[in-house]
Formats: sequence, C-alpha cells, structure tokens
Amino acid sequence: LDEVLDIAVIGAGSWGTAIGNLLATKGHAVTLWARDKELVANISQQHRNAKYLGDLQLSLRLLATNSFLDLAKKKIFFVAVPSFALREILEQLCNTLEGSARESIWISLTKGIEYRESGDEIKTISQIMSDVLKTDRIFSLTGPSFAAEVVAGAPTTVVLAGKQMDLAKTLQDAFITDRFRIYTSDDLLGVELGGTIKNIIALAAGISDGLGFGDNAKGALISRGLVEMTRLGVHLGAQKDTFFGLTGLGDMVITAMSTQSRNHSVGQRVGSGESLADILDSMDMVAEGVHAVKAIYHYASDNALDLPITKGVYQVLYEVENPIQILTELMSREPKHEAI
Amino acid sequence: LDEVLDIAVIGAGSWGTAIGNLLATKGHAVTLWARDKELVANISQQHRNAKYLGDLQLSLRLLATNSFLDLAKKKIFFVAVPSFALREILEQLCNTLEGSARESIWISLTKGIEYRESGDEIKTISQIMSDVLKTDRIFSLTGPSFAAEVVAGAPTTVVLAGKQMDLAKTLQDAFITDRFRIYTSDDLLGVELGGTIKNIIALAAGISDGLGFGDNAKGALISRGLVEMTRLGVHLGAQKDTFFGLTGLGDMVITAMSTQSRNHSVGQRVGSGESLADILDSMDMVAEGVHAVKAIYHYASDNALDLPITKGVYQVLYEVENPIQILTELMSREPKHEAI
Repeated sequence: LDEVLDIAVIGAGSWGTAIGNLLATKGHAVTLWARDKELVANISQQHRNAKYLGDLQLSLRLLATNSFLDLAKKKIFFVAVPSFALREILEQLCNTLEGSARESIWISLTKGIEYRESGDEIKTISQIMSDVLKTDRIFSLTGPSFAAEVVAGAPTTVVLAGKQMDLAKTLQDAFITDRFRIYTSDDLLGVELGGTIKNIIALAAGISDGLGFGDNAKGALISRGLVEMTRLGVHLGAQKDTFFGLTGLGDMVITAMSTQSRNHSVGQRVGSGESLADILDSMDMVAEGVHAVKAIYHYASDNALDLPITKGVYQVLYEVENPIQILTELMSREPKHEAI
Repeated sequence: LDEVLDIAVIGAGSWGTAIGNLLATKGHAVTLWARDKELVANISQQHRNAKYLGDLQLSLRLLATNSFLDLAKKKIFFVAVPSFALREILEQLCNTLEGSARESIWISLTKGIEYRESGDEIKTISQIMSDVLKTDRIFSLTGPSFAAEVVAGAPTTVVLAGKQMDLAKTLQDAFITDRFRIYTSDDLLGVELGGTIKNIIALAAGISDGLGFGDNAKGALISRGLVEMTRLGVHLGAQKDTFFGLTGLGDMVITAMSTQSRNHSVGQRVGSGESLADILDSMDMVAEGVHAVKAIYHYASDNALDLPITKGVYQVLYEVENPIQILTELMSREPKHEAI
C-alpha cells in the first residue's frame, strides 16, 4: 500500500459494508456511516453486520459512526444509500461538512434512476450527485458483485467509471486486490444504466421462476433483456459496447440467474402470487428494480421507446396484470427473424 | 396443423428425444432412431427415455427404431448424434437410403466442431453434414433449451438457422408451438459457433464452482466469454450480433449458470480435483465442450488468436495445470481499461 487514504462509506447496507470492509482490510482508514445506531454498534463492537451480512466477520480496522461530523477529514466518499434517500442524505452531509465535501472524490455504489415527470430527462445516480455536490469528481463502481462474496474473499471483477480517467486510474491502483479486480471505463452513463436496468430483468426472471418456468425461459429473457438494455442505453447516449461488458451483461446474468439477488427474489414472490405491498413490507433491504421499472416505464411511454420486458414487469407489479399472461406474451410474440 | 410431415430424428439422447417428442405431440409423423435396442424398446413400449430423461412421459405418437430402413419415407431428418460419431452415422444412413437422403431437409441438433490438423479450416456440424450429404438444405436448431424442460412443456425459445430462408420460414411454421417459440436466422455459422463455444465457457464456469468461487466470478467469466465467442466468430466470418442473441449469450448463460448442464458438471468435477478420464468414464452422455475446447485451442494457437478462457480450460483439462492458478490468472490480468 503506497498511501493510506481517508475514506468514508455512506450507508451500511450489504454493498457499502462489503466495500468498506475490503478497503479497511487493504489498509485504508475507512469509516462507515449509518443512521441506525444498533447497526453502528454491531459493526464497531462485534465486527459484524448481522442485519445485512449475517455472521460474516468484518475487519477490526473498519470503523462505524452515525455522525457526519466524524467524516470531516475524509477525502473519498463512497455513497451506498438507497436511491430514494440519496438527495436528502447528500444535502445533510454537505450542510454538515460545508465546503470540504465539494473538494472530495465521490464514488457511487447505488443503483437507481430518477424520472420526475413527463418532459424531464432521466437522471442517473451520478447526475443526481452532481446536482447536489456541484463537482465532476464523481465515479461509479459496479459490476457482477454480490456483497457477501466480496466479504468472503471470493474473486470478483468490477468497473470504476467516471469522466476523469487519470483520477480513475489512481483510484484503481489504490483499491485493487488479488481477489477484487477493477477495470476502468469512461462510459459513466452506460455503466450506471446497466446496473439499473439489470434489476428490471432480474425481476422478470424472478417472476418467470415464480410461475414455475425454467432456465430456458430465463435464457430467452436475458437475451432479450440485453437488447432492451442496449436500446435504452444507446437512446440515452451511452456506448453500446458497455452493455456487453461486466456492468451490463455480467451483472445482469448473476442478478437474474441467482437466488442471492433481492430483485430476483421480489419477482419470484410476485410470480408466486404475493402482492408487491406485502413483499416490500416484509423486506429489510431495498430492491431497486421496483423503483427503476416505474421510472423507466414512464420515460419509455413518454418517449415512444419499445421496452417490452420493462412494460411487462411494470404491468405485473403496478397494474396487477396476470403474470402468466404477461410472461407468455413476452415469450410468444409473432414468429419472426431474430433481430438484435 | 396444416400438413403432417414425415420426420426422422437420428439419435435418441435427451435433446433428440425432446425434439422428436415435441413434433410428435404437435401431430407430425416422427420416428426416432437409436442404435441402442434397449432404448428403442423403452421409447416404443414404455413411452419413456429412462436413460436420458428419467421418468418423463413421452407422446404415444412418438415411434422408435434401430433400423435406418424404417426411415425410407422421411422427408426431414433431424441429426442429434454426438459430433464424434456424426460422419460415420451419416454415411451409413446415406448408404442405406441411397438417393432419397440428398433430397431431404436436414436439421442439426448437434453441437461441436472439427479441426483435423494445422492449416485446415474449422468445420461446424452443418459443414460436415454438407460434406457428406452434398446438399445445401441444411439447418441448425439451437438456443437456450434444456431438453427436460422442453419435454415438460416449459416455455422455450430457439433459433432455426440456415441459408434457404423461405424454407426456414416454412419449417418455423410447421414446428412452432405456444410453448416452443422459433425465430429464424440466416447466420448459420454464427448460430453453430455460439452453441459450440458456450460449452467451453460452461466448463470454465463449472471449474470456477468446483474451486469454490462464487457467482461474481461466473459473472466475469460469462462477460469475458461473450467477448471471446464474438472474437472467434467474427474471425471465422460469422455476424457479430448473432452472439448477443439467443444462440450465443442466451444459451451460454443457462449452460454456464445452471447445474442442469453436462459441461458445467464436468467442469465442476475437474475443479474439485477429479481427473477428466475418470469423469468421462462415469458419464453416459457426451459433454461436447470437452472435444470443442481441444479443436478450438489448437486452431487458435495455429492462427495466433487470443482466446484466454479456451486456453485456460484446455490447460486444466489436458495439460493438468492447477485449476486454481489458471482461473486466478484469468481473473487477475493486469488492471486495465475494460475493452469489449
């Protein structure tokens, strides 16, 4: 380790905790912030995050706090709060830390998207951060990466994307480990969109499983999901190739195929007949796809974009359409030539 | 059903049986050929294929034989024999049926590839069939499709590829069902290569699982696998987009992520420390990736193509290199910009 970096991680869900733990283990000075005092105590004293990561042992070097004031000297802020709470928490943080926040480096670990009303543009997490923080030193770290596997030291490969590539390479060197490989990308928009849209495809795959369909159906959904992700991404100005990489396809595959995924799990319960309200009531964690599908469905409707999987998932979740009918329609459009 | 077609399926493994059963259920006159008399009796009398499909019930309309003479009136031949036996069986069949074979329509259900020696071209299954049969009326039917799910009636989507598109559309109409959707493609080469290379990626994913790596590692392997598949395919003259569709990505995802896959299972046992020879001795079915990786590795070496996953799987299988070292190398090449 050439230099010990002063790092804050805002949000102690599974992914924020996993990244904080990884960087503390590497030797950086990491403080994890959470609103929940019990969670802070659990991390500080038992070196566990029982709520989100079960019994996995965390680094003794990983500190936790529920006060923004403890983060005054931090130079790098990872943001790992749910998308719906992002603006509010960033504003509170900036008010507390005043000017120093704007001089920091910001790295999003959050997936999600904002679309307020007809005529608006879609905003990704980094764009929301840029609105609040008034800086361009914003990055996104994403890729196929279940948090529990990162804590357990299983090999993982992710992408750090941003506009300032020199800084991205410095951060890559500072964060990389033998088991946590980091690539860089200058397609911040594409990387964020992939990480968001994959949750919608995971919901669809979960619904399919909940209906008792098999792997064949998921293979088809994932193929068409990549087409849909790419269509929306290119429409919004992202680079097409990004969606074929780790942060698009790679992350979509494991999120849609694995029962470790929250979004898959919500879809599966919906497909089995539970109501969305009951499912969300029963969950501690946020399934970001549930919000993203609403934003993207409305944006696509307002802009005449054909996104059949997004539309189908929206109809099942929010218009309580019969999932077996919607999924069957998705699988049985008129026979035609395969078009990518 | 507009017209009852006279169909033969050569080979009564799981996939040949599933397709024969599907078409017999639809109302076509289907005879399944197998060399194994016990298998023929099992299908004819118990309407089961206990060896390859357990207790699944087959259509009472599905006939079986072990004599090529019973196939004399067939107009459409599906070929579902292991790639290593393909030339020999086709030649015997043509000798028995004489001229009529060449006037038939041929549809490959076999995955595999042939590369005899340095300087040769790679040959796909349809190219081998074309060598022996001297006809262009050759198609390939492939996509994300575990046989047992097709027999059980789970929704499945596949691609029928060939050079004669009018004929492909006629066959599409004749074979399609509510639960078995068929797209057409004119990229026969790309469709066949995807179906073959995905088995190599499934071996790699299985090795990764055998080593105790997790989903994150598989997400990375599948992303890089798509790059590798596309690189080889475009080099050989296939259309790039084909690899992002059902027969490339879609089939690769389920083969690499599901424990239903034979190639994944072989990889997993290798990763756990069993020898390839012992594994192959213990298997009734053919894992085509075990042959394909050898052919493609040698072709790539002879033609200076960089296919790191293929090379790694070859080294683990045939040079008995340490799988943990090879997989770790695959995951930890020098940090760099993500390139597709």
